[in-house]
Amino acid sequence: MPLAPHLVTFLSDHRVGVLATVSADGRPRQSLVYYAFDGDRLLVSTVADRWKARDVERTGWASLAVRGDEPPYPSATIAGPAAIVRDDVPRLTALVAQRVMGLDEPPEPQSEEALKAAGRVILTIEADQIGPTSYLEEES
Amino acid sequence: MPLAPHLVTFLSDHRVGVLATVSADGRPRQSLVYYAFDGDRLLVSTVADRWKARDVERTGWASLAVRGDEPPYPSATIAGPAAIVRDDVPRLTALVAQRVMGLDEPPEPQSEEALKAAGRVILTIEADQIGPTSYLEEES
Repeated sequence: MPLAPHLVTFLSDHRVGVLATVSADGRPRQSLVYYAFDGDRLLVSTVADRWKARDVERTGWASLAVRGDEPPYPSATIAGPAAIVRDDVPRLTALVAQRVMGLDEPPEPQSEEALKAAGRVILTIEADQIGPTSYLEEES
Repeated sequence: MPLAPHLVTFLSDHRVGVLATVSADGRPRQSLVYYAFDGDRLLVSTVADRWKARDVERTGWASLAVRGDEPPYPSATIAGPAAIVRDDVPRLTALVAQRVMGLDEPPEPQSEEALKAAGRVILTIEADQIGPTSYLEEES
């Protein structure tokens, strides 16, 4: 599902969100992450043996909640099918690194070998369910 | 489990967080909420027929993630047994309202009848698992 323009603007204006996955015993797990986009996929950089990657591989689903920094705290929650991607990791990791570093362009990608040695993978979320969204300016 | 002093300080200095619960089909659901404390319980005000209340009643578990507003974005994630509380709602709702309104003291509690008519309940989380916490200053 394509993201609405006002949602793309909001997600572009921010760079950290709370990722939620579900553990093997059925409990919600959260952590703060930097995110980027690749078309309508949300991207998070992680390591293959972290719980967030294991939860996504087991359940195929994740949620990301992003909020603004000032009252009334605009926010958006996006959930959908999620996957751990092991190809195209250098390009996608550079997209996340761009956001972490606040650069105008992605940095030079690291080598596939170096990223593989570090266990780096990309967690993707397809925006399928746009959940609670509040105080976002919809474009007319 | 008592919250460590540096965690109490951090949670007191902020007032919104992302609540995560698990839906009936096993997926994570998140929304932005104001929270308060009552001893070591975290409190969220909600309405009995909202999904967050239904998820907690069905699963008995929730997680709350709180982050700071400036890089490097200090954050704390607290999960634990959760419940929907239907007694003591006026006092607990006033504790949450104090945080929403940014007051030094809780406002005069609303009547039990008015809150019941509005379907207002309190979602509580006992801090059981202190998850990813980053960049918080531990008190020496």
